[in-house]
Amino acid sequence: MASIFTKIINGEIPCYKVAEDKDFIAFLDINPNAKGHSLCVPKKEINKIFDMEEIHYQALMKFSYKVAKALEKSVDCKRIGMSVVGLEVPHVHVHLIPINEMRDMTFQHKVAMDAEAMNELAVKIQTNL
Amino acid sequence: MASIFTKIINGEIPCYKVAEDKDFIAFLDINPNAKGHSLCVPKKEINKIFDMEEIHYQALMKFSYKVAKALEKSVDCKRIGMSVVGLEVPHVHVHLIPINEMRDMTFQHKVAMDAEAMNELAVKIQTNL
Repeated sequence: MASIFTKIINGEIPCYKVAEDKDFIAFLDINPNAKGHSLCVPKKEINKIFDMEEIHYQALMKFSYKVAKALEKSVDCKRIGMSVVGLEVPHVHVHLIPINEMRDMTFQHKVAMDAEAMNELAVKIQTNL
Repeated sequence: MASIFTKIINGEIPCYKVAEDKDFIAFLDINPNAKGHSLCVPKKEINKIFDMEEIHYQALMKFSYKVAKALEKSVDCKRIGMSVVGLEVPHVHVHLIPINEMRDMTFQHKVAMDAEAMNELAVKIQTNL
Protein backbone atom coordinates (compact mmCIF):
# COMPACT_ATOMS: atom_id res chain seq x y z
CA MET A 1 0.00 0.00 0.00
CA ALA A 2 1.24 3.50 -0.82
CA SER A 3 2.58 5.45 2.17
CA ILE A 4 0.84 8.63 3.28
CA PHE A 5 3.76 10.54 1.74
CA THR A 6 3.31 8.81 -1.62
CA LYS A 7 -0.35 9.86 -1.48
CA ILE A 8 0.79 13.45 -0.87
CA ILE A 9 3.29 13.21 -3.76
CA ASN A 10 0.51 11.86 -6.02
CA GLY A 11 -1.80 14.70 -5.03
CA GLU A 12 -4.32 12.37 -3.35
CA ILE A 13 -3.78 14.10 -0.01
CA PRO A 14 -3.16 17.87 0.14
CA CYS A 15 -0.08 19.41 1.74
CA TYR A 16 1.46 22.78 2.47
CA LYS A 17 4.26 22.43 -0.06
CA VAL A 18 7.46 24.39 0.44
CA ALA A 19 9.74 22.93 -2.25
CA GLU A 20 9.73 20.36 -5.04
CA ASP A 21 11.98 19.06 -7.78
CA LYS A 22 11.84 15.94 -9.92
CA ASP A 23 13.09 13.62 -7.17
CA PHE A 24 12.06 15.24 -3.87
CA ILE A 25 9.28 17.18 -2.19
CA ALA A 26 9.20 19.22 1.03
CA PHE A 27 6.07 20.22 2.91
CA LEU A 28 5.11 21.46 6.36
CA ASP A 29 4.62 18.77 9.02
CA ILE A 30 0.91 18.80 9.83
CA ASN A 31 1.65 18.29 13.55
CA PRO A 32 4.73 20.49 13.96
CA ASN A 33 7.23 20.42 16.81
CA ALA A 34 7.78 24.11 16.09
CA LYS A 35 6.64 26.71 13.54
CA GLY A 36 8.15 25.85 10.16
CA HIS A 37 8.82 22.15 10.92
CA SER A 38 9.13 20.64 7.44
CA LEU A 39 9.63 17.18 5.96
CA CYS A 40 11.92 16.49 2.98
CA VAL A 41 10.82 13.31 1.21
CA PRO A 42 12.15 11.33 -1.77
CA LYS A 43 9.45 10.63 -4.36
CA LYS A 44 10.72 7.08 -4.63
CA GLU A 45 9.24 5.24 -1.65
CA ILE A 46 12.06 3.77 0.44
CA ASN A 47 11.72 2.75 4.10
CA LYS A 48 15.15 3.45 5.60
CA ILE A 49 17.43 6.38 4.75
CA PHE A 50 20.63 4.33 4.87
CA ASP A 51 19.12 1.82 2.43
CA MET A 52 19.02 4.60 -0.19
CA GLU A 53 21.73 4.39 -2.81
CA GLU A 54 24.49 6.77 -1.80
CA ILE A 55 23.98 9.10 -4.77
CA HIS A 56 20.24 9.34 -4.05
CA TYR A 57 20.89 9.92 -0.32
CA GLN A 58 23.40 12.65 -1.22
CA ALA A 59 20.82 14.31 -3.47
CA LEU A 60 18.24 14.23 -0.62
CA MET A 61 20.77 15.86 1.70
CA LYS A 62 21.48 18.55 -0.90
CA PHE A 63 17.74 19.20 -1.29
CA SER A 64 17.38 19.35 2.53
CA TYR A 65 20.23 21.88 2.76
CA LYS A 66 18.39 24.18 0.35
CA VAL A 67 15.13 23.88 2.28
CA ALA A 68 16.93 24.45 5.62
CA LYS A 69 18.46 27.68 4.30
CA ALA A 70 15.01 28.91 3.24
CA LEU A 71 13.53 27.93 6.62
CA GLU A 72 16.24 29.85 8.44
CA LYS A 73 15.30 32.98 6.48
CA SER A 74 11.57 32.47 7.12
CA VAL A 75 11.24 31.63 10.81
CA ASP A 76 12.73 33.26 13.89
CA CYS A 77 14.83 30.56 15.58
CA LYS A 78 18.25 29.81 17.03
CA ARG A 79 19.09 27.25 14.34
CA ILE A 80 17.61 24.53 12.14
CA GLY A 81 17.67 21.05 13.66
CA MET A 82 17.61 17.91 11.54
CA SER A 83 16.24 14.52 12.47
CA VAL A 84 15.58 11.24 10.67
CA VAL A 85 13.68 8.61 12.66
CA GLY A 86 11.17 6.73 10.53
CA LEU A 87 9.63 4.40 13.12
CA GLU A 88 6.10 5.57 12.25
CA VAL A 89 5.93 6.19 8.49
CA PRO A 90 8.07 3.70 6.49
CA HIS A 91 8.97 6.27 3.81
CA VAL A 92 12.20 8.26 4.25
CA HIS A 93 11.63 11.77 5.60
CA VAL A 94 14.13 14.31 6.88
CA HIS A 95 12.66 16.50 9.60
CA LEU A 96 13.93 20.09 9.46
CA ILE A 97 12.89 21.93 12.60
CA PRO A 98 13.48 25.60 13.47
CA ILE A 99 14.56 25.21 17.10
CA ASN A 100 15.03 27.43 20.10
CA GLU A 101 15.35 24.80 22.81
CA MET A 102 15.90 21.07 23.17
CA ARG A 103 12.23 20.24 23.59
CA ASP A 104 11.68 21.33 19.95
CA MET A 105 13.63 18.19 18.94
CA THR A 106 11.92 15.63 21.18
CA PHE A 107 8.64 15.23 19.20
CA GLN A 108 6.80 15.43 22.52
CA HIS A 109 5.91 19.11 22.40
CA LYS A 110 3.72 20.31 19.54
CA VAL A 111 2.50 23.71 18.38
CA ALA A 112 -0.97 24.50 17.02
CA MET A 113 -1.29 26.38 13.72
CA ASP A 114 -4.45 26.97 11.68
CA ALA A 115 -4.70 26.37 7.93
CA GLU A 116 -4.26 30.04 7.08
CA ALA A 117 -1.08 30.36 9.12
CA MET A 118 0.30 27.12 7.61
CA ASN A 119 -0.45 28.32 4.10
CA GLU A 120 1.11 31.75 4.64
CA LEU A 121 4.22 30.17 6.11
CA ALA A 122 4.58 27.68 3.24
CA VAL A 123 4.38 30.53 0.72
CA LYS A 124 6.96 32.53 2.69
CA ILE A 125 9.39 29.60 2.73
CA GLN A 126 8.88 29.05 -1.02
CA THR A 127 9.77 32.66 -1.72
CA ASN A 128 12.96 32.29 0.35
CA LEU A 129 14.21 29.25 -1.58
CA MET B 1 38.28 28.65 23.20
CA ALA B 2 38.49 25.27 21.49
CA SER B 3 35.33 23.16 21.70
CA ILE B 4 35.40 19.83 23.52
CA PHE B 5 35.31 18.16 20.08
CA THR B 6 38.36 20.11 18.90
CA LYS B 7 40.15 18.89 22.03
CA ILE B 8 39.20 15.32 21.09
CA ILE B 9 40.38 15.89 17.50
CA ASN B 10 43.69 17.28 18.82
CA GLY B 11 44.13 14.28 21.13
CA GLU B 12 43.90 16.37 24.30
CA ILE B 13 40.81 14.42 25.41
CA PRO B 14 40.53 10.68 24.66
CA CYS B 15 37.64 9.15 22.72
CA TYR B 16 36.36 5.80 21.51
CA LYS B 17 37.09 6.47 17.85
CA VAL B 18 35.10 4.60 15.22
CA ALA B 19 36.20 6.35 12.00
CA GLU B 20 38.48 9.13 10.79
CA ASP B 21 39.64 10.71 7.55
CA LYS B 22 41.42 13.98 6.82
CA ASP B 23 38.31 16.13 7.31
CA PHE B 24 36.08 14.22 9.75
CA ILE B 25 36.14 12.04 12.85
CA ALA B 26 33.50 9.77 14.40
CA PHE B 27 33.52 8.52 17.96
CA LEU B 28 31.11 6.99 20.45
CA ASP B 29 28.97 9.44 22.42
CA ILE B 30 30.18 9.20 26.01
CA ASN B 31 26.59 9.48 27.30
CA PRO B 32 24.75 7.38 24.70
CA ASN B 33 21.01 7.33 24.01
CA ALA B 34 21.51 3.74 22.90
CA LYS B 35 24.38 1.29 22.40
CA GLY B 36 26.48 2.46 19.43
CA HIS B 37 25.35 6.11 19.53
CA SER B 38 28.10 7.90 17.59
CA LEU B 39 28.97 11.47 16.67
CA CYS B 40 30.32 12.47 13.26
CA VAL B 41 32.26 15.72 13.54
CA PRO B 42 34.07 17.98 11.04
CA LYS B 43 37.64 18.75 12.09
CA LYS B 44 37.06 22.36 11.13
CA GLU B 45 35.19 23.90 14.06
CA ILE B 46 31.89 25.34 12.81
CA ASN B 47 28.89 26.06 15.02
CA LYS B 48 25.86 25.42 12.77
CA ILE B 49 25.56 22.65 10.18
CA PHE B 50 23.73 24.82 7.65
CA ASP B 51 26.49 27.43 7.88
CA MET B 52 28.89 24.86 6.44
CA GLU B 53 29.76 25.37 2.80
CA GLU B 54 27.59 23.05 0.75
CA ILE B 55 30.50 20.91 -0.48
CA HIS B 56 31.80 20.47 3.09
CA TYR B 57 28.29 19.63 4.36
CA GLN B 58 27.90 17.09 1.55
CA ALA B 59 31.22 15.50 2.51
CA LEU B 60 30.09 15.26 6.16
CA MET B 61 26.87 13.58 5.04
CA LYS B 62 28.85 11.11 2.91
CA PHE B 63 31.13 10.33 5.89
CA SER B 64 28.04 9.88 8.12
CA TYR B 65 26.49 7.46 5.60
CA LYS B 66 29.59 5.27 5.78
CA VAL B 67 29.59 5.30 9.59
CA ALA B 68 25.84 4.56 9.70
CA LYS B 69 26.32 1.50 7.48
CA ALA B 70 29.06 0.21 9.81
CA LEU B 71 26.86 0.87 12.87
CA GLU B 72 24.00 -1.06 11.32
CA LYS B 73 26.29 -4.08 10.92
CA SER B 74 27.64 -3.77 14.47
CA VAL B 75 24.60 -3.23 16.69
CA ASP B 76 21.26 -5.00 16.87
CA CYS B 77 18.61 -2.34 16.12
CA LYS B 78 15.59 -1.58 13.98
CA ARG B 79 17.36 1.22 12.09
CA ILE B 80 19.90 4.03 12.42
CA GLY B 81 18.40 7.37 13.41
CA MET B 82 20.13 10.66 12.61
CA SER B 83 19.89 13.92 14.52
CA VAL B 84 21.61 17.28 14.41
CA VAL B 85 20.77 19.68 17.24
CA GLY B 86 23.80 21.62 18.47
CA LEU B 87 22.28 23.67 21.27
CA GLU B 88 24.89 22.43 23.77
CA VAL B 89 28.23 22.07 21.96
CA PRO B 90 28.75 24.78 19.29
CA HIS B 91 30.69 22.47 16.97
CA VAL B 92 28.73 20.59 14.28
CA HIS B 93 28.02 16.97 15.18
CA VAL B 94 25.75 14.45 13.49
CA HIS B 95 24.26 11.99 15.98
CA LEU B 96 23.89 8.49 14.55
CA ILE B 97 21.79 6.38 16.89
CA PRO B 98 20.90 2.69 16.57
CA ILE B 99 17.22 2.85 17.51
CA ASN B 100 14.49 0.43 18.48
CA GLU B 101 11.91 2.87 19.77
CA MET B 102 11.13 6.59 19.75
CA ARG B 103 12.63 7.21 23.18
CA ASP B 104 16.07 6.39 21.72
CA MET B 105 15.81 9.66 19.76
CA THR B 106 14.66 11.98 22.56
CA PHE B 107 18.01 12.39 24.38
CA GLN B 108 16.12 11.86 27.63
CA HIS B 109 16.84 8.17 28.07
CA LYS B 110 20.47 7.09 28.40
CA VAL B 111 22.24 3.74 28.62
CA ALA B 112 25.21 2.93 30.85
CA MET B 113 28.28 1.26 29.32
CA ASP B 114 31.66 0.72 30.95
CA ALA B 115 34.99 1.57 29.31
CA GLU B 116 35.66 -2.00 28.24
CA ALA B 117 32.29 -2.34 26.51
CA MET B 118 32.75 1.06 24.80
CA ASN B 119 36.19 0.10 23.58
CA GLU B 120 35.09 -3.29 22.26
CA LEU B 121 32.15 -1.71 20.44
CA ALA B 122 34.33 1.01 18.86
CA VAL B 123 36.71 -1.65 17.54
CA LYS B 124 33.78 -3.69 16.18
CA ILE B 125 32.39 -0.67 14.32
CA GLN B 126 35.85 0.14 12.91
CA THR B 127 36.15 -3.37 11.52
CA ASN B 128 32.73 -3.04 9.85
CA LEU B 129 33.61 0.19 8.03
